[in-house]
Formats: sequence, C-alpha cells, structure tokens
Amino acid sequence: MKTRAAVAWAAGKPLSVTEVEIGGPKAGEVLMEVKATGLCHTDLYTLSGADPEGLFPAILGHEGAGIVREVGAGVTSVKPGDHVIPLYTPECRQCKTCLSQRSNLCTAIRGTQGKGVMPDGTSRFSCEGAPVMHYMGCSTFANFTILPEIAVAKVREDAPFEKICYIGCGVTTGIGAVINTAKVWPGANVAVFGLGGIGLNVIQGARMVGADKIIGIDLNNGRQEMARKFGMTDFINPNEVGHDKVVQAIVDLTGGGADFSFECIGNVKVMRQALECTHRGWGESIIIGVAGAGQEISTRPFQLVTGRSWRGTAFGGARGRTDVPKIVDWYMQGKIDIDSLITHVMPLDQINHGFELMERGESIRSVVVY
Amino acid sequence: MKTRAAVAWAAGKPLSVTEVEIGGPKAGEVLMEVKATGLCHTDLYTLSGADPEGLFPAILGHEGAGIVREVGAGVTSVKPGDHVIPLYTPECRQCKTCLSQRSNLCTAIRGTQGKGVMPDGTSRFSCEGAPVMHYMGCSTFANFTILPEIAVAKVREDAPFEKICYIGCGVTTGIGAVINTAKVWPGANVAVFGLGGIGLNVIQGARMVGADKIIGIDLNNGRQEMARKFGMTDFINPNEVGHDKVVQAIVDLTGGGADFSFECIGNVKVMRQALECTHRGWGESIIIGVAGAGQEISTRPFQLVTGRSWRGTAFGGARGRTDVPKIVDWYMQGKIDIDSLITHVMPLDQINHGFELMERGESIRSVVVY
Repeated sequence: MKTRAAVAWAAGKPLSVTEVEIGGPKAGEVLMEVKATGLCHTDLYTLSGADPEGLFPAILGHEGAGIVREVGAGVTSVKPGDHVIPLYTPECRQCKTCLSQRSNLCTAIRGTQGKGVMPDGTSRFSCEGAPVMHYMGCSTFANFTILPEIAVAKVREDAPFEKICYIGCGVTTGIGAVINTAKVWPGANVAVFGLGGIGLNVIQGARMVGADKIIGIDLNNGRQEMARKFGMTDFINPNEVGHDKVVQAIVDLTGGGADFSFECIGNVKVMRQALECTHRGWGESIIIGVAGAGQEISTRPFQLVTGRSWRGTAFGGARGRTDVPKIVDWYMQGKIDIDSLITHVMPLDQINHGFELMERGESIRSVVVY
Repeated sequence: MKTRAAVAWAAGKPLSVTEVEIGGPKAGEVLMEVKATGLCHTDLYTLSGADPEGLFPAILGHEGAGIVREVGAGVTSVKPGDHVIPLYTPECRQCKTCLSQRSNLCTAIRGTQGKGVMPDGTSRFSCEGAPVMHYMGCSTFANFTILPEIAVAKVREDAPFEKICYIGCGVTTGIGAVINTAKVWPGANVAVFGLGGIGLNVIQGARMVGADKIIGIDLNNGRQEMARKFGMTDFINPNEVGHDKVVQAIVDLTGGGADFSFECIGNVKVMRQALECTHRGWGESIIIGVAGAGQEISTRPFQLVTGRSWRGTAFGGARGRTDVPKIVDWYMQGKIDIDSLITHVMPLDQINHGFELMERGESIRSVVVY
C-alpha cells in the first residue's frame, strides 16, 4: 500500500512530503496508522547530519500515537483497533537486559534498529523501488508505519492522540528520569539544568513525587513562567549569577547541595556543574541530554569519592510496554500536564515549519496531526 | 605526659622517632594507648609532600588498634580498658550526614580534623613547647594518642591488635566498598583494578558476598598467587593483553561487561577503563584509589546514558562505630583473612624501613607494634 510521509532524503535538507510504498506487517510486526507525532530535537539532530549514525533516505519521527490496523503472524499482545504508542526502546521481556530487571535498555532488536531496518534485516518502506530506511524503529513521520510487536505500548482509547504522542519520548524521558532512574524521594532538593521540554517534564515529575526545592537553571528568563507553572520553586540564570558561580548558588539555596540534579541540555560543561552542585555524601546527577559526537565529560575523582554518583538515563529508564500506559493514565487523571507543553499543532505538510519553530526556540513541542 | 612517636618534621624527610609531650583528654576525648598501627599509602602520600593538605610537623598514622587508658568529661560510650580502633571517619550519629542514613561521611569534626587539631581547635601534641599536628584525627604513629569519642570503635577484647589495626583503614575500605557502597549481589561479575592491599580486600569482600567471576587486573604477574588465594578467578595483565584491550578482555570474559568494577590504584586513566568495562544498562564502577592533586577523570557521557554509574567510596562507606566491630567479628570468625596480608611486623624505630618496603612494592602491609 501507499502512505504519505515526510522523507529525509539527505542530511541538512528539508523534509519532503510525498507518497511512499509500505509493505504489510511480517511475523511479529504490526501495521500502525499514525494519528499524531511530536517533533523532537533528536529528529532534528539526525536530519542536520550531526548524528554519526544517521542514515538517508529515511523516514524520521519517533514520538507518535495511533491505531493498530493489521498484525502479522504470531502477534498476540495487540490487535487491530488497539490504540498504541510506538517505542524506540522496546520491551521484549526476554533478553538478558529485560530479565535483569535492572535496566530498560532491551537489546532484542538493537542491531537491526540501529541499521534502519526491521528485525528481519529489511525495510518496509520504499520509494520508486528504492528502499527508504526506518528511524529509531518508529518512523512516525509516515501516516502508516510498521513496528515490531515488542515496540508498541497499548494504551487506553479515550486518550487524545495529539497529546499522548508526547509520552512516546519527551514526557516519559523527563518524568521517568525522576521516578525510575533517580528515584527522587519526597522532600528531596532537585536541580534541573535546561528548561526545555525535557526539563519541564523533569520538573513536573519532581513535583509529582513530592520534591521540596525544584531549582531551574536556564539562560533564558522567558522560561521561568512556564517552569514555575510546572513546579519550579527557584530559578537561576547563569548569565546573571555568573557561569562559574552556578554550583555555589545551588549549594547555598539547598544548604549543601542538591540531592538530585538533571542535565537536560547535552552540554558537557553543564554536565560537570550538574554533578558538582549535588550534595556531598549522597548527591546523584543524571545525564539526560545528548552531547555532540566525541565530546567528553570530566571532573576530579574527589567529587565521586566524597559520595556523589554520576549516572545517565535513556527513555527515562522506562520499560515502554509496562510504564507508558501508566503515564497515559496519569495524564488522563490530571496528575501531569501535557497540554501546556504542546505549543503548536500542524498538518504534515507544515512539518518543516515545525522544525523551524524548534530551531528558533519558539516552540516547546510541535505536534503533527495526520 | 610523654610518649614515643615517629614525627614527620617536614615533607620528604624520613620520620624521626622521639619523645613528644601529649596532653590529657579534654571533654569528649579519650586517651588511647596504641598497641599496633599499619603503614598505609596515604601516610606515605602525605609524608612525600604531594598531599596539598599535608601539615608539618605532624604525627602521621591512621590505621591503629589499642586500649583506652583515660576518658575526658562526658565520655560515655567507652571506658578505660576498652579495646578500640581509631576512626579517621568518625560517626557522631547526629550531624546532617549521619542522620541522612545515606552516607558515612560524618561532618561533625571535619573542619578541625583537616587542620590537624582536635575539635576545640588545639593540638594535644607538642615537642619542646612547639605544637605538633594531629593527622587524620588519629596519629597512630605515637604510642599514646588522643581521639574524640566519636572517632573510636569499640571492639572485642580477644582480637589481636597487630591484625585488627588493618581494619582501621585498608580492610574496611576494600570490603566496605563491596558491601556498603556497591552492594555487590551473589552471582555478580566483578573487576578489580590493582591487586595491592585494597584490591585484595575488595576481592575477598566479593568472594564473601558470593560473586561469580572476580577478575583481577594488575601489571605485576607476581600478584596473581595471593589474589587467587583471596578469591580472584581470572587475571589480566594489561602489559600482556595490551592496555587498550583491557576493557574488551573484561567484556569478553563476562559476556557483556562486569556488573561492578573497583579502581584501587588512583590512576585516572584506569578509572576510565574501570567504568567502561562495566555492563551496559546497570554496570557500576566504584573509585577507591586517590588520584594525584588536580587530575581529572573523563569519559563520553554515552557511557552513563546507556546505564553505567560512576561512583566513589571513602572508608568503604562504613560507619565506623557501627560497622568496624562487625568486621573484627568476621575476622575472628574466619570469614575474612587478614593474616596473609600482613607481610611485615616491626618495632616503631624501624618505621622508615616499613615505608621503604612499601615504596619498593615488597610488602602488602607492614605493621608497627609498640
């Protein structure tokens, strides 16, 4: 069959909305009608050409929501008509990592996913006979896409696609980092570096679990209002206090250092500040942001020997099939706010405009509805 | 009163065994007769002048065992005749850190201890009228020393001083890193970088808690025999496999990476290897070694984002008054071996010879008996 899609033909070029061919689901796969997809910085990073693992041509997009339309042989956990969110981090429940119960980084299809193909080693997308690659196992910039069964989370049917698509990446990454990776406790003091979409979700996660001080750090004072709405209690602008005094400012505000910090930017210098602002003895710093290729973090080992931990998280430590439906519930129950974060909604043919808004810092999240 | 002591008059000079004056215990302090003391790399580090916080003249030594001979006003937890081990990391049970129950790094007397004085801001030692500084709050290179009450662990009286003095630093640091900081689980695979005294204690700690593979890494093949006796199952000599292939060798041996690694050297490049050899998803690397002043660790943040944790430990995460007596029990029960590690015993006037053995790598632990 054919489907409309925004194709990334080459690095650094705008997406091209066109029709592509899509094959039906093979064994263990599902055909999903994408109803909505968010635009994420990671899509832009790959499109820019900076991602050393980026492949072209490809159909980008990894933050979607939609409906299962057809299932391949052997698929038992979902059926046509089910509402689902695609998972770029699948959950097979059978690999060494899933069985370890210590990590969400399922390895069942890691090799093929990184090569832009389905688990059988081939792509389901093509255009004029030439294959077009999948992206992060999702390719939600197509109206129809193919996903492995282990890479879809079944969610309730009363949840609006154009909101819950954001749970497919940003919401879960931020909230999950707080509850799954850091396990922030009630009364903890938290520092959040970078008040974009991820940072705001970290903030509302910290508020949800009962954190005391929730300190936001950003160069843009314009981010304060939204962050306070999400639960930020204190704000630091490094341009105002001095970049080399940010750590001390946080130590002062918290009477010794943050219990937890989160780096939501991808800046290795900020990652160091995020570590060093945490409390001697037990502070934990969680890296969420993705640094540029080849960049390195550094610190004096004394920071760790005196009790700080340096950690990281991907997809918020969430096991997608298990945890994503819960976060959808929390949204529907009003425990978390997504609506305020979705600043722009547009049809597929305006997707390049959505990325322009992102590059200019004018949007928090743009969502494409099909 | 007077006591014999090995005084460090200046950086880089041998210790000088002489008589010094020692004042009696003030409120909250105890006078201890030191019966035995280990010689630790940290003493040598300070004596060398490389320690930026080193003070002179001072009485070094921090790994002792002995008997309380007199107590100052208000001391209730020990009495004359009690056998004790001095604690360079005290346990006041009342400061923010002790009450956090998340760290052993008690801050009750941190400020004065770092300045080489007792909590009232003065030294109890003097020589010909001039003050001589305390060291790490212990100064076990004196036959009699003064300690704050919160800095002594009361231990059973049938345990031999010349063995359990080692529990005052090295044994607890290594075993504690395994059980308190890393919390190594039964069946875990463990990598231990550096097979000196600390590394050997990490190894026997890992064996005690039921680790599977215990991989030792050292440049010296001569360390193998002792390490195997303590529980090492596999050995890697970086000079033989290639320094840049150590990480891969550990990944291969463990089918994906060590669950835990311990750096017991103080080499920032090895610290990086120790992190990167741990398992994607959940590997934890614990820094025990003390790096040179100003040196930094570094890695790509991807290592953390994919699930590894970088941590550190001091005094093995042990709360001295609570945990040290337990380790003495384990030694007396035969759960851990200390005797094999104490390769040399000598009187105080041969203490400089003990440090020469250490510098030449000919001893694991030298102990001075008074």
